[in-house]
This record gives sequence, structure tokens and C-alpha cells, in this order.
Amino acid sequence: MNPQDLIRKKRDGARFSDVEINAFIAGVSDDSWADYQITALVMAMFIHGLNQSEQNALVKAMLESGEVLDFSDIDAPVADKHSTGGVGDKTSLIIAPLAAACGIAVPMISGRGLGHTGGTLDKLESIEGYNVRLTKSQIKQTIKKCGFALAGQTQKLVPADRKLYALRDAASMIESVPLIVGSIMSKKLAEGLDALVLDVKTGTGAFMENLWDAQALAKALVKTGNDFGVRTEALITDMSQPLGKYVGNALEVYECLRIMRGETDEEVQPTLDLSIELTARMLVLTGISKDVEEASALCLEKIWDGSALEKFHQNIELQKGNPRICDNPEMLLEKNILQIPVAAGESGFITEIDTRGVGEAVCALGGGRLQVKDAIDYAVGFSCGKKLGDAVEKGESFGTIFCRTRSQADSISEKLRNAYKIGVEKPQNSELVKEIIS
Amino acid sequence: MNPQDLIRKKRDGARFSDVEINAFIAGVSDDSWADYQITALVMAMFIHGLNQSEQNALVKAMLESGEVLDFSDIDAPVADKHSTGGVGDKTSLIIAPLAAACGIAVPMISGRGLGHTGGTLDKLESIEGYNVRLTKSQIKQTIKKCGFALAGQTQKLVPADRKLYALRDAASMIESVPLIVGSIMSKKLAEGLDALVLDVKTGTGAFMENLWDAQALAKALVKTGNDFGVRTEALITDMSQPLGKYVGNALEVYECLRIMRGETDEEVQPTLDLSIELTARMLVLTGISKDVEEASALCLEKIWDGSALEKFHQNIELQKGNPRICDNPEMLLEKNILQIPVAAGESGFITEIDTRGVGEAVCALGGGRLQVKDAIDYAVGFSCGKKLGDAVEKGESFGTIFCRTRSQADSISEKLRNAYKIGVEKPQNSELVKEIIS
Repeated sequence: MNPQDLIRKKRDGARFSDVEINAFIAGVSDDSWADYQITALVMAMFIHGLNQSEQNALVKAMLESGEVLDFSDIDAPVADKHSTGGVGDKTSLIIAPLAAACGIAVPMISGRGLGHTGGTLDKLESIEGYNVRLTKSQIKQTIKKCGFALAGQTQKLVPADRKLYALRDAASMIESVPLIVGSIMSKKLAEGLDALVLDVKTGTGAFMENLWDAQALAKALVKTGNDFGVRTEALITDMSQPLGKYVGNALEVYECLRIMRGETDEEVQPTLDLSIELTARMLVLTGISKDVEEASALCLEKIWDGSALEKFHQNIELQKGNPRICDNPEMLLEKNILQIPVAAGESGFITEIDTRGVGEAVCALGGGRLQVKDAIDYAVGFSCGKKLGDAVEKGESFGTIFCRTRSQADSISEKLRNAYKIGVEKPQNSELVKEIIS
Repeated sequence: MNPQDLIRKKRDGARFSDVEINAFIAGVSDDSWADYQITALVMAMFIHGLNQSEQNALVKAMLESGEVLDFSDIDAPVADKHSTGGVGDKTSLIIAPLAAACGIAVPMISGRGLGHTGGTLDKLESIEGYNVRLTKSQIKQTIKKCGFALAGQTQKLVPADRKLYALRDAASMIESVPLIVGSIMSKKLAEGLDALVLDVKTGTGAFMENLWDAQALAKALVKTGNDFGVRTEALITDMSQPLGKYVGNALEVYECLRIMRGETDEEVQPTLDLSIELTARMLVLTGISKDVEEASALCLEKIWDGSALEKFHQNIELQKGNPRICDNPEMLLEKNILQIPVAAGESGFITEIDTRGVGEAVCALGGGRLQVKDAIDYAVGFSCGKKLGDAVEKGESFGTIFCRTRSQADSISEKLRNAYKIGVEKPQNSELVKEIIS
């Protein structure tokens, strides 16, 4: 089964057998296919699509291209949450310790930020000393001790995905439901989960901007998870504005720590609400709680009584970070960072936010990366003073730039001003959770 | 205009502007696009197709990626013939000297054989010393002296095509009308022609096996040629059996020399007929003859009076080959070559020939190449004793293998026997020229 025959077949719109999908992924994994053959076939898959049988075969072949985690010797249900990515999307930092505090083992393997979206690993690395490069056995040991681990993909976990993703990125083949499902689900299934909750973002800061695309992706993810015996649910959630208050690595950890310390205010409330919503689903899917109401109450209790914070403290120690930030979150805020407000150009209501533009502005400050090799400035970011529907006066600040020099702020303030549309009519409230797909 | 944006656009089925096509071909030519980006875009082009405006922009951009020939200082119409390739398709060796003898300047830039099809350059190299690697100025000097040159593509002529073709071959993207048109027409237009006659093959030995595909390709080629101001016609011709008598490099040169020497018999008649048909069209398109009838008569005259052979003799001398083969074609036949007949397994009429299979059998003897780097044995081949519609008795020979060892013959005789279908009913004659598209 040579590359040319397989490419020709998919090029002409035919369906692959399991054996053919396996041959493709084997060729990707053992470098016997040239990159230019891989992208030719992936483009044909992108355009012609994959049916469910091909979809499952792809996930299985990718999953089996590397090693998988095994928690059969851990006496707790294993579950994870995965988000499709957004701006200010920091719930992983709360969900992992919170779910652990509620009795779930959470092997949360995360990614880095690219483009306008942030990445959990980058946020964690803003904690002095925090180590996200864990081996398979370190992940397991960490979970045994504190209930969760936050780590990057190991070299041996789904190696086929690393190469495929890089080629898809370089050759504009990211936004395909079957390929996204292959990438996400192969990695999540390699975690050896009992249950998985997916946070599929929609809106101006999401990869799937419109609701219809998000629904299609959510359904495909849930179908695949369940087909592989993992109890899977997806929430379609709002990304028409940054989530919560801060965008920026250290600032987002700061926001989460304050929430886990019970220092919640209106600005960070959506972050808490969504974290509880997602964790509650994990609790129900794993059978720890009988329904979402009971699960939500348990979550709130574990925040209020400090259990979630305590879990995070233990985890930071285990992963070599400085746990004193749990007692003093202000340690995360560098003293020589300038805070420069951005003033509205007119009066009215905030009717629309180009959330991707906000993410790109923070990225331009050095808070994200345009290319995989770029370094990150953890301290910079943006604080959202006003949210969708808020009234603002001309000249009033709608947010604050956290940066190192005034010229940095100048370089992005126009972009931020353009990202916030101001109109005369107060818009309808956007629901944080738009749909649940199970 | 970066690769990602262009790939995304064609991936989603949008149309390219001239500027966008130029950016793509520039990126191919200057190596700024990675091979895996090129194949991703070419696959999207393959699947979504190109409209006529994109088609012409592609041809123009490829043409302008390198140098072009200029015959404005030659006082003769400039014309060429191009064939889409077949088995035993040797007409170029007659057409070039014959057209030159009739007063046309013929800058015939040809290719090598790959897979089941032969290539004019390989056939010529079976002539001792013959040099097909001519520079632009050598091509011109040769034409000035004898009216035609037979050469390989120079490094500087349509460099974009060399890379694109190699990638299309390696990633199964050959059989696309707009990409074939881009490849053929950019090279032919770079020859600086006044007129072009295309021989589009159809049948079991052609790339475009069915007539419908051949028609679509022929129409697209003719439209493009005429759009670029070159008077262009296409003949759709039969490739449901090898053309003429021999398949194999030296054997095909031998067949052509015998025809030019007037030593024509029934077995080689189709080679002569098609050569005259195609040359006659060149004569009409360039205005040398007023119609095909007059042109055909002129061609026959130039064969009978020895003018075509004389032109070939001059050309071989100019291109450093041994011209004595013109006086003694048997010099081309190596003495230690075995001639082994292949016997029919049953009695009846030859109803169908898997012409590709015949080409592949000769290739397996060493007479062709599976990969570009393979060496060729010029002396081996096959002689077609029986043609479509001929009666054959069980045990009677339907052809002769020219090979070096008996085991070589044994290794392909079964394949050849399978390639010739024998039935009880005599099939209808197949027309050599099926359609003329102008």
C-alpha cells in the first residue's frame, strides 16, 4: 500500500478502510511518507471529509502510534476537560485542582498558546520553577499524590499528531472537523480516561467562530469519545468576549488563585461559573455526583473550604513550582510592569468585541507567540474593565494594558480600541453556556 | 501573499487572480514555498479545478518562470507536434525531419519515458553518440542548419514545471486537465511557436484511457494554445494497440528509418499514416499548404524523394550521432539480442490489447524506466506480429520479444499473452484518427 495509491484514492473521493488509514498513520509515524505526500493526502481528506468509520479509524491509528497512560491501579475515576481554545480561557487552572478535590484523578495534558489563543502550559510556566515536562511515570506519581497533573505532551504520546499538526498548520489545513477530532481525541484517549468534558468555544475569539461549526465539531467529538468507551459530553460556550477579567499568562494564574482563595468579584465571576459548570459535568459523568445541581454544590464547597487551593498548592510543590503564590498571589505581578488604561473613543454600550483582536494585541506585547519557537513575556497582558453590554463614556477606560514600555502600549491601543465596538443600543446578554451536547 | 493564505483560498474552492497564480509559481520557482505547501495547494487545485482565466494565468506564470526561445530571425514558420504519450509512439522521429523538409522550423523539445510510455529522448539516445542535451543557442544553430532540433528541456526552460511535475508524480496528482495543460503548454509556448499540433492519445495505452477524457484534454490544450496566439489543433488518435510494428527504443528508430527510406510495409503503415496526418496539419496551420490533401501529398513526396531522410542524416551529424544508420538501419539491431516468439494460447481474433501491459512488459525487460534514475537497455523490445482484428491460431506467434536472455522472455511472456485478448468474433476496425479539434 504505497503513498501514491492511497493519495489517489482519497483524491478521487473514495473511502478508506481501517487498514488504509493505519498504513497512512504508520507512514507518518515512521517517516516513510515524505511531508509533501502527507500534505497532499491531508488536503484531500480536508476537502472530501471522512465518514464516521474513517474518523474512528483515524483516531485509533493516531492513538496507537504512541504510548498510552494507564490508571487501572488508581482507585479513582479518571476524567479530563479539554477546551478548543480561546482568549482569557483559564478554567483548566481551577478545574484540575477542583476536580481532584472532589475525588477525580485528572491527567490533564495540555498545549501551548499559538496565535491569538493562550495555552495552559505557558500560563503554568509563569509560576516560578513550575515544571510541565513530566514523563509518563512522573504524571502518574503526581496524580497519585495530589489527584492531578498538568503536563505537556510527552515525546511518546501520539507522535503522529505532532507531525500532522505542524504540517496542517504550515499548509492551512487546521479547520477541518475530522482532522481536529483526530488530533484532540487521539491525545485525550491516550490519557486513559473514564470521562471527558469538552469545552467547545464559539464566537469572535474561537477557532470555530459560528455556532453551527461549533455544534458540528462538538457532536463529532462527543460521538467519537463515546464510540471509544469514554463517557463524553461537550458544552458549547461563549467566546464572544475574553473569559473573566484578565488576558495574559501570569495575570490569568493570578485571577484563578484569587478565585480559589474565595476572592471573587463580578469581573471574575464568569471564570468561576464556567469552571464549576465544566467540573460538575465531570462529576456527574464519573458518577461521583448524581446530577449537575449536586455536583455544582460540591464544587462550590470545595472552593469555599479551600480544598481546591490546597490541591493546587500540593501540585505546585510536586511540579517544582513556588507554592507561596497560593498565599500571596500578588507575587505573580511584576513590580516594574506599567498599567496603562485604554480610553473609549465614544460613548455608548459595548455591543461587540473582536476577541481574536484582543488576543492578538496581547500576543503582540510578547504575551503569546506567532511561531512555535517564539519566547513569551509572562507578565504582560490586558485587563478587561468593561464587558459586552456595559455602558462606557467617551474618554473612560474600558481596559488596562499591562506592559513594559509606554511605546508597547501605544503600539496596540488603537487595535484594542478598534476591537471594542460601541453602539447606542444595549445588546442582549450572551449566554455563557449555549448548548450541552451529550 | 503568503503560502497559507493562498492554500486556504483554493482549499475552500475560491478562484485565484492572476496575481495570486503568479505568487504561487514564483514561490515554486524561487524555493520560498516548501514542497509540502506546494502539494497541498496542487491537491486543492486538482480537486476544485481551475477556470479558463486561472488556467491561462497558470500557463503564463509557468512559461515566464524561465527563458523562452526566439526564432524571430529565422525566415521560416516555427511549428511543433506534441503527443500525450503512448506505446510504440515514434512519430516525432519522422515528423521533425519531414516537417523540416517541407520548410518548417521545428524546435522539438521532448521528454524521457516513464512507466509504460516511451520517450523521444531515449529513442534518440539509442543512436550511437546522439546528443540531446543542447543549450538554447545550440538548439537555434541546429535548426538554422537542418531545420529541426530534437532536445531535452534545458535547465532554464520552464523551471517551475520540473519541480511541479516531480511533486505531482510523487504525490499522485498527474491526471488533472488544468495541471496537464499547464505543464504541456508552458513548455510548448516557451518554444516560440507559430503553430502547434497535438496528438492526444486515447485507449488502453494512453494516460487518458477513455475518449471523453481525451476530448476534454484536447479541447483545453487547443483553447489555451489559441488564447496565447499559437495556431493550435489537436488530433485524438488511437492508442488501443501499439502504434506500428515495434516497441523499444532502437527498434522504433529502426522502424522510422525504414519508413523514411521508403521501405514501408503493412505493419509499419500506421506509423507512416499518423506521421503524415500530423505533419500535414502543421503545414496547413503554418500556411505552407492550403489544405490537408495538398499537405499530405507534399509529405509523401518528401519521403519518397529522400528529403526527410536527408534532413535526419544532417541532424544526426549536427547532434553528434552516427549518421551511417541512415544508410544501414540494421546497425541499430544488436547482434546478440535474442528474438523469442510469443505463442497464442487459443485460436480466434485479437479483440482487445492491454497496450499499457505491453509497454510495461518492455519496461520490465529494461527498455523503459520505473523511476527517473533508472538506466535503459536500448536494444530490447517487442515486435507486434498481430494487430487488433487479426486472426491467430493456437500456438501461432502473435509477436516477438527482443531480449538478452531466455529467462527475461519467460518473465514477461505470460504478461504479454494476457495483454492480448482473443475472441471468436472479429472486432470492428478502430479508426487511427478519431477526432480533430481546432
